[in-house]
Amino acid sequence: MAKAKRKKKKPLALVALGGNVLIQLGQRGTIGEQELNALEIVQRLVTMVKLNYNLVITHGNGPQVGNMLIRTEAARKTVPVQPLDICVAWTQGSMGYLLQNALLNEFWKQEMHDKRVLTMITEVLVDRKDPAFKKPTKPVGPFVTKARANELMKTGIKMVEVAGRGWRRVVPSPKPQRVIQRRTIRELALSGKIIIAAGGGGISVYTKPNGEWEGIDAVIDKDLASAWLAKEIGADVFIILTDVGQVYLNYDKPSAYGVERMTTHEAKKYIREGHFAPGSMLPKIQATINYLSGGGKRVIITRAGLLEAALEGRAGTHIVPRKEDKKWPTGTIRISSRLKSSKRKK
Amino acid sequence: MAKAKRKKKKPLALVALGGNVLIQLGQRGTIGEQELNALEIVQRLVTMVKLNYNLVITHGNGPQVGNMLIRTEAARKTVPVQPLDICVAWTQGSMGYLLQNALLNEFWKQEMHDKRVLTMITEVLVDRKDPAFKKPTKPVGPFVTKARANELMKTGIKMVEVAGRGWRRVVPSPKPQRVIQRRTIRELALSGKIIIAAGGGGISVYTKPNGEWEGIDAVIDKDLASAWLAKEIGADVFIILTDVGQVYLNYDKPSAYGVERMTTHEAKKYIREGHFAPGSMLPKIQATINYLSGGGKRVIITRAGLLEAALEGRAGTHIVPRKEDKKWPTGTIRISSRLKSSKRKK
Repeated sequence: MAKAKRKKKKPLALVALGGNVLIQLGQRGTIGEQELNALEIVQRLVTMVKLNYNLVITHGNGPQVGNMLIRTEAARKTVPVQPLDICVAWTQGSMGYLLQNALLNEFWKQEMHDKRVLTMITEVLVDRKDPAFKKPTKPVGPFVTKARANELMKTGIKMVEVAGRGWRRVVPSPKPQRVIQRRTIRELALSGKIIIAAGGGGISVYTKPNGEWEGIDAVIDKDLASAWLAKEIGADVFIILTDVGQVYLNYDKPSAYGVERMTTHEAKKYIREGHFAPGSMLPKIQATINYLSGGGKRVIITRAGLLEAALEGRAGTHIVPRKEDKKWPTGTIRISSRLKSSKRKK
Repeated sequence: MAKAKRKKKKPLALVALGGNVLIQLGQRGTIGEQELNALEIVQRLVTMVKLNYNLVITHGNGPQVGNMLIRTEAARKTVPVQPLDICVAWTQGSMGYLLQNALLNEFWKQEMHDKRVLTMITEVLVDRKDPAFKKPTKPVGPFVTKARANELMKTGIKMVEVAGRGWRRVVPSPKPQRVIQRRTIRELALSGKIIIAAGGGGISVYTKPNGEWEGIDAVIDKDLASAWLAKEIGADVFIILTDVGQVYLNYDKPSAYGVERMTTHEAKKYIREGHFAPGSMLPKIQATINYLSGGGKRVIITRAGLLEAALEGRAGTHIVPRKEDKKWPTGTIRISSRLKSSKRKK
């Protein structure tokens, strides 16, 4: 196809929603809360569709998977406990449903009747030899008593004590290697369907010695999985929505400031300098670097409320591959602690 | 398109798997059990793909949704109980995952590398004025004590006492009106993708006065929902897999006999004569009649192990619309209590 023609194609965006998208901090996670939260986020997403983006949506599932582990733990004497691949699959079902239904309602209200939305149950391949399996570090689920922790540890489950709160399970969080459903996701997204996929970082499967895929008791970081997916489907922009409007250096210190633009090179430097918290901004920056190093074009990190402004270059942190440096007229970083000070145009 | 050309198209089959497909009677539902069961059923389904069918797969979720209700009940003091639409969405996620992964493995083993499998989270529209909402009758979930039943009844939940076993929740099981995702399911199935959809009868939603869809605390019979979907996607054959090889008249009596063929007219007569048990064969026959009256072509009811034989006309009960009667040479029903007595060819 001629290049001129390709340029007219709709850009493909992958938007990774935060883990708290449907159960916000401090909420218990009633259905009413989740439906309201879904309504709020989908208004932002529909705006993107109106701006002519093809859209793949991924999402975290921290609170949901935590609640699921509390439920399975509470009922463990009656019904079998299920591994984490199943727990993630559960949350893909319920969160996908709430998001897709809210999207369908919003499209209907805005008379965008031709839009289709599709939640795809998504598996992500991991390596059985990933060091994460030898050293599980990701805390999940409920706090339990020492007695119960001892019981669990006898079955091979790793638990850590959190001072003053009890014992908590830690699980392996291996690196994603491939999104099994990547081709279908790409094909359907390019056909204009809105795809909800890879919820909770995807259902972790590994390749058995006989070549089959089998579920494995692990969780995958959703930003890393989303980055892989963004790369694999050739997304034109990878957007990570989180609680903050920008990436901050010296976060939570008096000297904190937000970053408007940076390159992967700078991002790596900031990682080395310890600017980003593990389990919070760090995986997002790592995901960003992975995506951009693998041929990705542009990453935006911002909060949902600023999505439209960020797409217009007026908000958020924009990260590009190193080679893009020269396109920026003055220096490589522009820093603003206040959005309105930004002078960048579209 | 010319009729001659259309005839060459792959036939589209909708196969409804039984509620016990992944957790069989007497099993507790460990992940190991479910994976083994998935392996068994997908071998039958892959055979259908080899026989050149396009395939939509639906499934029941009785044991899974029951286990989910036990879990949510056990943890109710810690995490919010969720309505049945969410419970069904959970099971669509986990069962879809197990089935799709097993299918992918089987395709891989059989070197059918081009086959794609897709689990779609599926919503089904019901009518808020369906009489089922006034008179919930479908028993779901765990048995509870009288004290707990009283508590639940105060919150508006309907409970019934089952002699000797305690109290159990009964929920509305309204009739399906439309499968929201029907167009996408049809489009993707016709493109050769294997689609897993409408698990557990679909996630029940209704239309609010303002026109939006919202989840509702109900379950939909999976055979009825599957019949709707089969009709809506124009399936060439609707296959209901269950525990018995054929539909029986005088079931469980010494005079029981299996039905090889019947028409919708005969099926209605047998319903009137009380041959089919509510909650068991009756909804399957009703689903059959719905599908065939709505333009459907052919229904097969059999058990998974006989699927291939049934497709070749050597097993199962075959049901066709009344107008097909004349195509059968002698009478309208052929009865055989033993499959090998069948003389029918392909």
